[in-house]
Amino acid sequence: MAAIKPSVPKGTRDFSPAEMVKRNFIFDTIKGVFRKYGYQQIETPSMENLSTLMGKYGDEGDKLIFKILNSGDYLSKVDPQNLGTLNSNLVTQDISEKALRYDLTVPFARYVVQHQNDITFPFKRFQVQPVWRADRPQKGRYREFFQCDADVVGSDSLLNEAEFVLIYDEALSALGLKDFTIKINNRKVLSGIAEVIGKADSIIDLTVAIDKLDKIGLDGVIKELLDKGFTDADIEKLKPVILLEGSNGAKLASLRSALEASAIGLKGCDEIETVFNYISKFKIQRATVELDITLARGLNYYTGAIFEVKTNEVAMGSIGGGGRYDDLTGMFGLKGLTGAGISFGADRIYDVMEELNLFPADANQTTRVLICCFDKEGEEYALPLLQQLRTGGINAELYPAGAKIKKQMEYANNKNIPYTVLIGSEEMQSGLLAFKDMASGVQQKLSATNIVTQLKSN
Amino acid sequence: MAAIKPSVPKGTRDFSPAEMVKRNFIFDTIKGVFRKYGYQQIETPSMENLSTLMGKYGDEGDKLIFKILNSGDYLSKVDPQNLGTLNSNLVTQDISEKALRYDLTVPFARYVVQHQNDITFPFKRFQVQPVWRADRPQKGRYREFFQCDADVVGSDSLLNEAEFVLIYDEALSALGLKDFTIKINNRKVLSGIAEVIGKADSIIDLTVAIDKLDKIGLDGVIKELLDKGFTDADIEKLKPVILLEGSNGAKLASLRSALEASAIGLKGCDEIETVFNYISKFKIQRATVELDITLARGLNYYTGAIFEVKTNEVAMGSIGGGGRYDDLTGMFGLKGLTGAGISFGADRIYDVMEELNLFPADANQTTRVLICCFDKEGEEYALPLLQQLRTGGINAELYPAGAKIKKQMEYANNKNIPYTVLIGSEEMQSGLLAFKDMASGVQQKLSATNIVTQLKSN
Repeated sequence: MAAIKPSVPKGTRDFSPAEMVKRNFIFDTIKGVFRKYGYQQIETPSMENLSTLMGKYGDEGDKLIFKILNSGDYLSKVDPQNLGTLNSNLVTQDISEKALRYDLTVPFARYVVQHQNDITFPFKRFQVQPVWRADRPQKGRYREFFQCDADVVGSDSLLNEAEFVLIYDEALSALGLKDFTIKINNRKVLSGIAEVIGKADSIIDLTVAIDKLDKIGLDGVIKELLDKGFTDADIEKLKPVILLEGSNGAKLASLRSALEASAIGLKGCDEIETVFNYISKFKIQRATVELDITLARGLNYYTGAIFEVKTNEVAMGSIGGGGRYDDLTGMFGLKGLTGAGISFGADRIYDVMEELNLFPADANQTTRVLICCFDKEGEEYALPLLQQLRTGGINAELYPAGAKIKKQMEYANNKNIPYTVLIGSEEMQSGLLAFKDMASGVQQKLSATNIVTQLKSN
Repeated sequence: MAAIKPSVPKGTRDFSPAEMVKRNFIFDTIKGVFRKYGYQQIETPSMENLSTLMGKYGDEGDKLIFKILNSGDYLSKVDPQNLGTLNSNLVTQDISEKALRYDLTVPFARYVVQHQNDITFPFKRFQVQPVWRADRPQKGRYREFFQCDADVVGSDSLLNEAEFVLIYDEALSALGLKDFTIKINNRKVLSGIAEVIGKADSIIDLTVAIDKLDKIGLDGVIKELLDKGFTDADIEKLKPVILLEGSNGAKLASLRSALEASAIGLKGCDEIETVFNYISKFKIQRATVELDITLARGLNYYTGAIFEVKTNEVAMGSIGGGGRYDDLTGMFGLKGLTGAGISFGADRIYDVMEELNLFPADANQTTRVLICCFDKEGEEYALPLLQQLRTGGINAELYPAGAKIKKQMEYANNKNIPYTVLIGSEEMQSGLLAFKDMASGVQQKLSATNIVTQLKSN
């Protein structure tokens, strides 16, 4: 057989043992925080019916959905006329009825509608599963990646929004991030701004432009607004709002006076104030919480709060985001169920933690101790110790007899095993085994029992 | 929008919060044991190149692989002549280059070959991920299901085989199973049996027949063997081997004398004896370990030990299996790497545990305590306690103010929350909150601090 080195499809990844330990550290930390706040895990199938997914992500999204070929003799069921057109879109309907999920939100909406009679509302669920997108792969963008979402449906209490801030704060602090900002905005405030300048219909153009303030500066934003048909007078009215400064309280006060003519704008201000009020009752660990009215992500989707999280320690896009949406399940015929949710960008958090060296030093260790022996006799001698260690809850391995000690030590080093026990004839005679701390190189002669005790205590 | 209730594709499943807690309990237990024995986790992409998967599972298997439609205008790349034939198999090659993994073994082999320069051998890996098969769905058979595998490659030590027995014993005991049998056989013994009756070429027919001894009895096996062209004389030679009785030691002794003319058969006996010898050095918790020479699963694949695990408490197919294979990575051009592996049947283990009521009583609890209040004032009063609880590591929720207490209690019951704290005006005045054990109905008046202390201690 030709030795063609096999590979994975582009945009997909293998995760090595060292990477898995780090990924698990991130996911376990976030899951633990979700649970602490009453969120419960669900999982949905990787495949959904094509009809569940299509039309939910816009035309561009539809194209990026991975479709699964029907099994069996699928061409026998294709309309020959469709096939004759060589129009892929037409034919797809005949040869594919399932697809890989594109995100966790639409499957969650489907889940809620399907199981509505079994669910107690408010329903607080979290979900950590891979999603697939036929995007062009590039640095940091994959065709298979994990999403890590928490959503609550059936509760309009703004306490949920405040708790999302607490969840971000607690999870990212636990992961070791020291300086990050949770930005908050509200869709109603954006509507209010558009309303007071008499451009309610241009809210998309408006928010797309001011969302770029960070990148292109005020002059850039003004230029873009003028291009989109905004007048100089509009822009004069907008400036004080875009350039809000000071504390969150000061910003909110300015915003209130700027939006006093807009009922919806003031409603947005009220909501923001309530959320900040809730937050003020809690101790925040490391996050900076900031009102940022230029924040507009997912605008078409969100109806209330909008969140985005950024680290201030390294240059990196947002590491989290979310918001409130008023009609998530409407797409499946269940109206009037309000919800809110957030997402953690696990891949980016991984990169941040790597760059800042935040993974615990022992994140790489899976086996605590390797027992090394010279021969079958040593191996047999070692077996009771091996079991004693494992019974004590210590991850332990015995290198099968016959290999050179040098090779066994290399194995310990490559696998990042912090301790070894060497069993030679002298050790068997005395009952004192050579217990070595691989990092310091310090070696002690200890009885088997003392080795177990020492490993259990540190 | 028409309210057509959405559904999942047939053969796939949603997992509810209650199911997830139980599934996590199973997977976490097994993963913990894998780690204790030095196995390290990896993950591979859900999609593999079609060329990686095709031809590895036989013709039937190839048909059951879910293929993914190429993105974009895939028909533009199809050979019109192929398309004209309406031959689905021919066309698939043109419109699909990726597929969903069918098991974890082939992706693991691909992983080892692809990353061979980064791997320290012996490489002990475990992997818990979903696989997909376009099988006809039926009770207990799904199109998406999780496999839970541990394999070691690059070590021919039979200590690995013994440790697999220990892993099964420890994991299944930890899950609460009380009576289960780990059956062991060896492919070389089966070869030896075929050899001594002069039917080495008929080993498949032979083992397929004797594998059915449990189901169809000795007469049935004899009938099948006669149908397959075995003679009465062959069968007389076979009988004592098929009907081995007594302890494992006694069986092995009889087997040795029956196979004394077969070098490979005796080699198989030696291997079995070595494995049993290793096992005898360890304390087995609850498993019965049994030599069963009728065990033949995956015969074409295994070259040494063969394992199968069955529960003796409920009627159920095997809940685990595995064995040694000498050339796993040969399919990708890397020859001579021996390996061995086992798998846990997680779905069946789940069903066994449900039937035997083995899930811990609190397996259903995700939130420990729900704080209930009558109004906004109570809500504000509750916030510091809410944070105190969470800081103490206790999963806690506050039901947002405004709902009737009855509804809040229903929420606690439906979510299986074991404790509630009720905060009314009297409680706020006295600082003594109504702390209720939902199972017993017992209610105490406690300070916030004492509630936290009490919850932390139990």
